[in-house]
Amino acid sequence: MWAGLAACCLAAMAVAQNAGNVLPSWNESEAKARIVEFVKAVTDSRGKDYVEIRDRIAVFDNDGTLWAEQPLYFQFVFMLDQVKAAAPKHPEWQGNAAFQALAAQDQAALAKLGPRPLLELLGQANSGMTVAEYDKTIRDWLATARHPKFKRPYTDLTYLPMQELLAYLRANGFKTFIVSGGSAEFMRPWAEKAYGIPPEQIVGSQQEVKFEMKEGKPVLTRGPGFAFIDDGPGKPVGIYRQIGKRPIAAFGNSDGDLQMLQVTTAGEGKRLALIVHHDDALREFAYDRDSHVGKLDQALDAAAPNHWIVVSMKNDWKRVFAFEK
Amino acid sequence: MWAGLAACCLAAMAVAQNAGNVLPSWNESEAKARIVEFVKAVTDSRGKDYVEIRDRIAVFDNDGTLWAEQPLYFQFVFMLDQVKAAAPKHPEWQGNAAFQALAAQDQAALAKLGPRPLLELLGQANSGMTVAEYDKTIRDWLATARHPKFKRPYTDLTYLPMQELLAYLRANGFKTFIVSGGSAEFMRPWAEKAYGIPPEQIVGSQQEVKFEMKEGKPVLTRGPGFAFIDDGPGKPVGIYRQIGKRPIAAFGNSDGDLQMLQVTTAGEGKRLALIVHHDDALREFAYDRDSHVGKLDQALDAAAPNHWIVVSMKNDWKRVFAFEK
Repeated sequence: MWAGLAACCLAAMAVAQNAGNVLPSWNESEAKARIVEFVKAVTDSRGKDYVEIRDRIAVFDNDGTLWAEQPLYFQFVFMLDQVKAAAPKHPEWQGNAAFQALAAQDQAALAKLGPRPLLELLGQANSGMTVAEYDKTIRDWLATARHPKFKRPYTDLTYLPMQELLAYLRANGFKTFIVSGGSAEFMRPWAEKAYGIPPEQIVGSQQEVKFEMKEGKPVLTRGPGFAFIDDGPGKPVGIYRQIGKRPIAAFGNSDGDLQMLQVTTAGEGKRLALIVHHDDALREFAYDRDSHVGKLDQALDAAAPNHWIVVSMKNDWKRVFAFEK
Repeated sequence: MWAGLAACCLAAMAVAQNAGNVLPSWNESEAKARIVEFVKAVTDSRGKDYVEIRDRIAVFDNDGTLWAEQPLYFQFVFMLDQVKAAAPKHPEWQGNAAFQALAAQDQAALAKLGPRPLLELLGQANSGMTVAEYDKTIRDWLATARHPKFKRPYTDLTYLPMQELLAYLRANGFKTFIVSGGSAEFMRPWAEKAYGIPPEQIVGSQQEVKFEMKEGKPVLTRGPGFAFIDDGPGKPVGIYRQIGKRPIAAFGNSDGDLQMLQVTTAGEGKRLALIVHHDDALREFAYDRDSHVGKLDQALDAAAPNHWIVVSMKNDWKRVFAFEK
């Protein structure tokens, strides 16, 4: 209890000391000003826009919003390795379009297929594993895999300005959630360390799992199919099921986040919606309307009429990654 | 921020003052002693059983564990009213076994059918409603419905000793979740006030919902079917999906909680599992192996060999409800 109190006091002091210098990796642009203005408005208990702490719910897409997603969603790279390893046991995959596209690393074909057939392949690759065994394959992969451009562990490729934003919101009483098209279990092993977001605050796509007794022990084993795809119109459904409240702030980067942003800003009272626009080919990647990964088209068109903030990574962020000089 | 800090300090002081008198509505029995011993063990940072705050996850069944469930699950009473109101629009229900049992209040037949066909009827009754409209029907019903034995709002029928237990665990760093066979949305409107458990910490059965644009506004509407039944072997699945961690403490009262208790106590380290045994016909109800509602049979047999605590409501609780003299 006293440890908890001390932590609480320290957290409050850290915020107080930091009050003059929030979001240090953000340039002093309109984007930053609007974020700070929103947070001040909803936390001012005398103001008309005040929101009770219990309703300060903020949702963040993961791929392309909190960490990078190019040249291929990192979970797809993991899947490719998993599927390759399982391929000898699945001769029937040779005629499967998703397997062929994965094996050929044919991104145009993968994009055209959409996430479902790929997730289903992965499901088949790992079907029958217990969830603990599967968790270990994720941890092992993350420990050894390296990003092709940055030659670093994928977990190094989280965006420093977004980490600061998460911490800033939490310091102001927000509860921060990830709402990702990827599967929750792929994020849970590392999201707490990387983002300060615990497993129970991660909403994602869900593979079938079932309860079984194995050798007298209760275990959960993975089935071949997906129970829920948390992408596009699925995101508001995932939020409803797992959070049960309408967020007051939402952060995304692609058309897969469109409906989440719409639902968030359709609520009454002051709302914040923000799109991370990947326009920095030098420090990261530049892509939007024509990209196979993280396509940003409809959501970009919707930004201006809905007063959503569009963040230019190039102009609004001093640093992209913590490892940058 | 300072309000948050003050609340934190006050909470910590409240616990400190209370340290000599925890769980005041519990008699000084073995059940209480074992609960307190468990909490002391997992919170003692120098002890071998210490558990980090982030892993102090406690899960509670709702019906029969946190509030009463006789003579019929309260959500079923709500459903009966909803289904009755919708019956004129559904002539096809006349030949439906679940509808016939509901209309006749035939509890033996309802118990035999199990929850799924009843939940499906309710789903059909409310299909097409937006989730906001549905939420209002729940709130309206709760405001006016009265329990047949106690002549009080159903939300008065929460167990005072369990409310104290929830608060005691939270004061010791636990995060408390409801994991119920009922639907999450039926609990969300009142569980925060009644139990201190916010919507995002409620796991329950899930009706299909889908995202739609209606008159230019994004809404979620209810479909007729159920996407997930969070009961029996479904509870560990619901916990895995929504919490993503194995609980260290679980509280139930019926065979529908068996697998949740099994999964909780199969984990490594110190664990707590507890069954509320309804043996107090005078102050509440007395039932177990032969009950149509809240049947407790297999889980009761499993208690002793697994060292699960069985709480006698009659002998272990000084008071059952807050409204008792």
